[in-house]
Amino acid sequence: MSPQSSEQAGRIMAAEMAEQPAVLRRILEQGSPRIRAVAQEIAARRPRFVLLTARGTSDNAALYAKYLLEIRLGLPCGLASMSTTTAYGARPDLRDVLVITVSQSGGSPDLVDSTKAAREAGAITLAVTNNPDSPLAAVSEHHIDILAGPEKALPATKTYTASLLSLYLFAEGLRGGDGAEAAPLPGLAAELLARGAEVKQLASRYRFAERMVITSRGYGYPTAKEAALKLMETSYIPALSYSGADLLHGPLAMVDNISPVIAVVTDGKGGEALQPVLDRLRGRGADLVVIGPREQVAAASAGFELPTADVPEELQPILEIIPLQLLAYEVTIARGQDPDAPRALAKVTETH
Amino acid sequence: MSPQSSEQAGRIMAAEMAEQPAVLRRILEQGSPRIRAVAQEIAARRPRFVLLTARGTSDNAALYAKYLLEIRLGLPCGLASMSTTTAYGARPDLRDVLVITVSQSGGSPDLVDSTKAAREAGAITLAVTNNPDSPLAAVSEHHIDILAGPEKALPATKTYTASLLSLYLFAEGLRGGDGAEAAPLPGLAAELLARGAEVKQLASRYRFAERMVITSRGYGYPTAKEAALKLMETSYIPALSYSGADLLHGPLAMVDNISPVIAVVTDGKGGEALQPVLDRLRGRGADLVVIGPREQVAAASAGFELPTADVPEELQPILEIIPLQLLAYEVTIARGQDPDAPRALAKVTETH
Repeated sequence: MSPQSSEQAGRIMAAEMAEQPAVLRRILEQGSPRIRAVAQEIAARRPRFVLLTARGTSDNAALYAKYLLEIRLGLPCGLASMSTTTAYGARPDLRDVLVITVSQSGGSPDLVDSTKAAREAGAITLAVTNNPDSPLAAVSEHHIDILAGPEKALPATKTYTASLLSLYLFAEGLRGGDGAEAAPLPGLAAELLARGAEVKQLASRYRFAERMVITSRGYGYPTAKEAALKLMETSYIPALSYSGADLLHGPLAMVDNISPVIAVVTDGKGGEALQPVLDRLRGRGADLVVIGPREQVAAASAGFELPTADVPEELQPILEIIPLQLLAYEVTIARGQDPDAPRALAKVTETH
Repeated sequence: MSPQSSEQAGRIMAAEMAEQPAVLRRILEQGSPRIRAVAQEIAARRPRFVLLTARGTSDNAALYAKYLLEIRLGLPCGLASMSTTTAYGARPDLRDVLVITVSQSGGSPDLVDSTKAAREAGAITLAVTNNPDSPLAAVSEHHIDILAGPEKALPATKTYTASLLSLYLFAEGLRGGDGAEAAPLPGLAAELLARGAEVKQLASRYRFAERMVITSRGYGYPTAKEAALKLMETSYIPALSYSGADLLHGPLAMVDNISPVIAVVTDGKGGEALQPVLDRLRGRGADLVVIGPREQVAAASAGFELPTADVPEELQPILEIIPLQLLAYEVTIARGQDPDAPRALAKVTETH
């Protein structure tokens, strides 16, 4: 890699990560009333079941919404297996079902087709996108604009946190709340982004890693999945995400001194449920890095402390992904790759 | 590893894989009437949604059931996020909801707790286990015994195929069918098991692999996930499973000449939907091994041909996992490890 390209490496991804406080503020200040109105219209229809449809990063945002809707609204949720509709032509009975489709671009033809099919099958349809003029927004009965501005980097960052906050405000709106507890998020996100030096330090331990395991439970589990996806998209390190419960049931053997583990510990019931997994990992001498509250970081091999004191557990995922986005970025730079052009790695590798 | 232990390596897993034809026959001959009776009782209650709860291998069986129930019954399904109930105490309204819990042992306390909570919340509950005397069977209104006999190997094999066939017969029973199309499965499973030499040949290419990608679409996707889990549990190779659609959206870059790819190609709509992914992988020079019909294997780098001619697409997952179980076993042996004692690897590695 030439010195010039090295200087340019990751410029686009870095700029978009840095926009996150402004995007979160925009959603709270400009997006919130419209999101609440959509939520009220949908609440009046009394959905009994929610199906979430998405791919990649948006699928992790959808999983976050599943936790919110099940825990805080008591609405049973499922993540759609899109091919049942698009490849097999399934036409389930979707009366009383809210179908939420999450997509940054809103342009994927199969997401548009499956949403159209859901609407014809009687579902209440809601699209959550970064493009109000998209085909997906057009075929959906309701639309929420996540207001993140154009996203150019291949690894999605600002649209992830924007989707989470928009979905949080929607879920709050469904239960008649105003989402006021989200107000500190833009300021806290800015504080996290200012701690790049700490993340760079953490990244050095993964420079030569051949694999990684990322675990969490509850609200932090979508964060673990999204962090694994970010790391793979940028650095190509095979990063495996497991819920703590699944890790205990099987692949725990894989981590003993072989794979470093990152645990996302939300401060609350999810973190409590993860405790036996953390104890077991420590007992087995795993290299354990914790993203979470101070005392959890102190008990680990290393970590990144999150300001969780005044942040309800269900809002912490919007913050805890930020150091992990930065980590994916820094690990990729440390390995001499370009987070903005991950495909280039493959081309380089072919010549070896 | 001493010569003696090397001779013993994988004995338990091998014996349980070999039992599969007999187990499938037992389910068809002895289990089927009882499964149909349970299905009729549940059909009479007219469930409108299905939530599936499981972990590890059983979670992949649950995903197979999700495809069956959505495609063939038009029942919208979701996979439960167990911690919403067990850690957060969510109590969703589960009237008209069928909750299916799949668990080999039927003994996991949190599965028992979440099933009990679901029943209290108004759900119709069905446990699918390998132990009719288990606590899970006791707390569930309905129970299906998968009749696999005791499973001693850590990597579950016969209970996976037994769960799939039991869930297939249940889904057929819900729609008033008798499951007669499953009759050839025991014979075909025996034919696959007899082709160990072919699998051993395939296994040699993964002896030094540092990672693997396994992909599929539709009915084959649970197979891809289960194959990845088997490979990790036995050999510790980080095996990443993706639906073909997700692979195209992001991590495709990772596979170019870096990761070998195994594609599970079901003969039917799932395989057709995977075609663009296969074309793209071939175009990029990936090392592509296909488990599927003859013409798909012929167009790949290597593969294992499945007898799909008289097997409806929805039944193929019960067969296509068998060569992949054998592959996990053979790769592990080729790497000098013991498929029966995967945890031993970590102990060995510690001493390096």
